[in-house]
Parts: sequence; structure tokens; C-alpha cells
Amino acid sequence: MESRKKYTIGTDLGGTNTVFGIVDFDGNIVCEDSIKTQDYPQAEAFVEAGCICIMALVDKVGGIELIAGMGIGAPNANYYTGCIEQAPNLPWKGTVPLANLFNKRLGIPVKLTNDANAAAMGEMKYGAAKGMNDFIEITLGTGVGSGIVANGQLIYGHDGFAGELGHVIIDRSENARLCGCGRKGCLEAYCSAPGIVRTAKEYLKNETIPSDLRSIPLEDITAYAVSKAAHAGDELAIKVFEHTAELLGKACADFAAFSSPEAFIFFGGPMKSADLLMPTIIETYNDEVLPVFRGKAKFIVSSLMDRNSAVLGAAALV
Amino acid sequence: MESRKKYTIGTDLGGTNTVFGIVDFDGNIVCEDSIKTQDYPQAEAFVEAGCICIMALVDKVGGIELIAGMGIGAPNANYYTGCIEQAPNLPWKGTVPLANLFNKRLGIPVKLTNDANAAAMGEMKYGAAKGMNDFIEITLGTGVGSGIVANGQLIYGHDGFAGELGHVIIDRSENARLCGCGRKGCLEAYCSAPGIVRTAKEYLKNETIPSDLRSIPLEDITAYAVSKAAHAGDELAIKVFEHTAELLGKACADFAAFSSPEAFIFFGGPMKSADLLMPTIIETYNDEVLPVFRGKAKFIVSSLMDRNSAVLGAAALV
Repeated sequence: MESRKKYTIGTDLGGTNTVFGIVDFDGNIVCEDSIKTQDYPQAEAFVEAGCICIMALVDKVGGIELIAGMGIGAPNANYYTGCIEQAPNLPWKGTVPLANLFNKRLGIPVKLTNDANAAAMGEMKYGAAKGMNDFIEITLGTGVGSGIVANGQLIYGHDGFAGELGHVIIDRSENARLCGCGRKGCLEAYCSAPGIVRTAKEYLKNETIPSDLRSIPLEDITAYAVSKAAHAGDELAIKVFEHTAELLGKACADFAAFSSPEAFIFFGGPMKSADLLMPTIIETYNDEVLPVFRGKAKFIVSSLMDRNSAVLGAAALV
Repeated sequence: MESRKKYTIGTDLGGTNTVFGIVDFDGNIVCEDSIKTQDYPQAEAFVEAGCICIMALVDKVGGIELIAGMGIGAPNANYYTGCIEQAPNLPWKGTVPLANLFNKRLGIPVKLTNDANAAAMGEMKYGAAKGMNDFIEITLGTGVGSGIVANGQLIYGHDGFAGELGHVIIDRSENARLCGCGRKGCLEAYCSAPGIVRTAKEYLKNETIPSDLRSIPLEDITAYAVSKAAHAGDELAIKVFEHTAELLGKACADFAAFSSPEAFIFFGGPMKSADLLMPTIIETYNDEVLPVFRGKAKFIVSSLMDRNSAVLGAAALV
């Protein structure tokens, strides 16, 4: 890398907004701007609008000669090909060679990976995983994602799609929940924000415990409402978080048998209730894990929750 | 490495025998010999006897100056510390600094890892995984072990104990089987050779299908007997293998969500019945795996089954 390079561009491409940030080598977001992803039904028009937005930022910091490259975190992104493939929440169908499109337009190296991998990269370079060679980042949100780092490297797998721990089967029983992926019993169906809401609705239907949540129409219940109730001491809401945490603890026990990470790092909205989740995650994990791993792993809330970790992580790809 | 070095020493340390082999850089075992592990209740005496055995082999090939180093595959072995820790099937209690003991005595570098990791190393250097950067080696025997390779490197985890896929939970129901590790529902409790025997005994007890196995006293049934019966067309024995294969296929579907390997490579005694196991493993895997992985992974029987893969794999550590 030439000594003139001082920044990278980190891009957090989401279903609603796409945020572009100019990041210096210390992990500070110097400036950022965004466009509305859904405004561009054609990928080419999206890239065009994105580049206009980016160039305005680049000009602010001194020009494209100072930019080492661009990293993009996006759903259904393939690191090896630089393509987004069949992303259900993005406006573009089929396979979009996004890295290539930006590279042609900007003339700098462009790397693409999925959003959870980008979060793990950000965590390793700027966050709670600084100095760690082996950790698993688990992102809880609309889905459950993961970025797995072993031997100091992200695991991409032979096809670029490794690290789909939200789709490990946590319930193999007949009445396991249907997941958005079309299969049954995935961790995501239970521990994503919508999964937490499903658990709350099941408890409200099947249990007789009184709960403040009963005053909300079932279809209006959100993970935030459950969290608020739990923090106010609502017994049913607390049970919902305990159940969620137990499943996460059990899942992590299986993950340990795979890569024996130094730490599990949790990121995302539901972790605003870390006080409700973490003690049970840790207790369940240590109860359930193979004895050789017992008491060894750290359980940490991402230290990038308040910063734009997806932008930082994407910037760290370059 | 000096150009004079022509060989490494590969050591397969098992509960009964320890085999030492001199391996050339093309993966040929030039000569080998063994000692009885159980004859040495003290680790120091074991190392002493081992070194006498090794030096006789080394003299045959031209002296210690030609040896680049020594690799040892052993149960409960920690790659980072070079120690064997609390191995239930070895005569030495506590922590044994085996790599260090051999290094002091022989004056060459010594690396130690667990037997399944050694098998994966051998597979990558000399076997079916040649040229692969991402694969999972699954060893079926008295237990179920694994060696996971991602980005062309073995995953050791932060503590050296990663890759315990035999202890991923495949059955979370109330009546899941007790595993040797003290927990319930581990893959090993179903898909190891003793696990296959347990399944056969359960079927003989709970099913009314006629079977040639009914002529054998329950306590004398072996995995080999079940395999023989299945190959002779015995319906119950075939069902035992089908069930084993289904569980392996389901487990591999979860493993794919982790590291998305190019191939799953199976090693060990039960794979002598690969014709009975593989079609159902592959079918179940592709039925159960996340759509993005469907039809991508190869399922391969180790190409080192007839050679001493543990010796070769251990040799490949150096």
C-alpha cells in the first residue's frame, strides 16, 4: 500500500438504507452519507447514485488518491465472487456483480462480504475482539447471522457462504418452528428479534401467567415491548428472554465443539437486553458444553454497538 | 529446512500400540515399528522405549541428520502445549508434556495433535483432500472424531481442542442416549462403532422384523456383525445403517452452516460399509441443508484407509 493512502470506504448495504463512510486507519469514521437502497430497482442506477454520494465524501477528505479501497457488507454477499446472490430483501434479482461495478466506476479495489462477516472484521480490527485469533460474532436482528474467525482469519468456506449459524438446527422435534429459509428448527426462528416475539406470543397463548403484554394486541407485540416488560419485572417477558438465552447457550456449546473460540461476541438489537440474556447464556453454556471447554469461553457484548460497526467492518475488509 | 533433510517421523499413539514410521517427503512410509503403549505405566519409560525403537529406524535410513522432525497423533493431545491431557485410554494420568520429552531426547522439532487432526493433515497432504482448502475429516471408530480445515489450515481453536464434532448434540429429546463424555445426545453416541451396535440392539429389542442378528447373543453383537448382516440383505441391519447415515447427513448439514467445506471425508472402520452409508448420508444432507449449500459438497471415503494414515498425518505436522 502506498504511503499516501489514508482512508478506506466502508459500506453498509441494507434493505432500507445504504451507508457510505470514509474511515481512517485508526477506525474513525471521518464522514458519512447514505442513499435509500429501495429507490434503485436497477443495480446499475444504485451504483451510479452510490458513486456520486461517495465522490462527494472523497472530495471532502482530499481525493480518491488517498483511498486504499472499498469494503461492502451486504446480505447474501459472496466474498469470492464479489457478487450479491438472490438476496430476498434487496430490490435486485439474481446475481449482481456489485464489487465489480463499483471497482469499474471508482478504480479502487472493492471487497464484498456478508454483513455478519463485516461485523466480525470490524470487531477484530476495532472492537471487542482486538488481538483475538479465534472468536465467533453472533448478530441478532431480523435474522441471526454470524462471522467466524479462526487462526486470525474469517472462515468463508469453499463457496464464500460459511458462517450461517442462524441456520443450525436447534430443535429437531416434530413441532419445531418453521424458519424463513423454508426449513424447521433453525436457531434464527427462535433467537432473532421476530423469533423472540414468536416466543412471547406462544407464551401468551399457552400460559396463564399474568403479564402486562396481555394489554397489547398480539399483532402489535415487538421485541422492544417484550424487553421493556421484562425490565419492569414482568414474569412472562422474563421467561421469554430466559428461553431465548437458553437456546443461545446450547447453540454456543455446539459451536465450541467446532472451533473452540476464545469468545462469543454478540451484536444487535436484542443485546440491548444483555442484562437479561447473558447470565443465562453463560450458565446454560457451561452446563451443556463438553467438559474440556467448560469455563473457558468469554461471552461479550460487541463494543461496536454504538458506532456504525457495519461500516467499520466493511472498511476493515480492505 | 536444510536440503539434507529427507524424512519425518510420524507417530500414531494409540491406547494399545504406538506405531513409529519414517516417512519421506512424497508420503511413503519407508520403514516402521511399534511398541505396546500399555507396557509403560510411566510416560518417561514410554519415551525411552520409543526413542530406542525410533533410533533403530533412523539408523536404517542414514541417521538423525536426515530427519526434519517428528509429528505425533494421540488422543487428548493439545497442539499448542505439546501435552497429552487427561487421556482416559492412555496409562498416564494428568498432563504429560510428550512433545517436550521426545524433543529433549532426540534433538529434533516435535509436534503433537489429536488423532483426528492428524488424519485430516494426512488427507490434505497425501490423500483425498489434496489441493483442498476447506474440508472436514470425520473419523468413525470407537468414537467420532474430526479434523476441520478452513482456509487451508487446521482449526485448533484458542485452546488447541477445536474439532470435537463427535460431541455436537444430534438429539435434544428427553430420551437421548448417554454419551461417554457424560452428556446426552452426542453424535458419537449414535455413529461410532459402539453407537451402531447400540442402535442394532435397540432395534432387536423394539422391532419385530426377523433378523439373522437374532441368532447372536445380544452382548456379542459387533459393528462388523451388523455390517455383514446388512451386506447379506438383512432388513434390520440395513435399517441400522440407514439410521446411522441419516444422523450423519443431518449433522453434516449443520457443519456446512459453519464452515461450508468443499468435502466431507470419512475415515474409519464403519466406512468399510460406505456402500450402505454414503447414499443415505448424501440424500439426507441435501434434503436437510440450507438451500445455498444444496448439492455443492462432496462426500468422500478417505483414500488413506488402507495405508497408515495416522502415521502419515502425524508426519505431515512437521
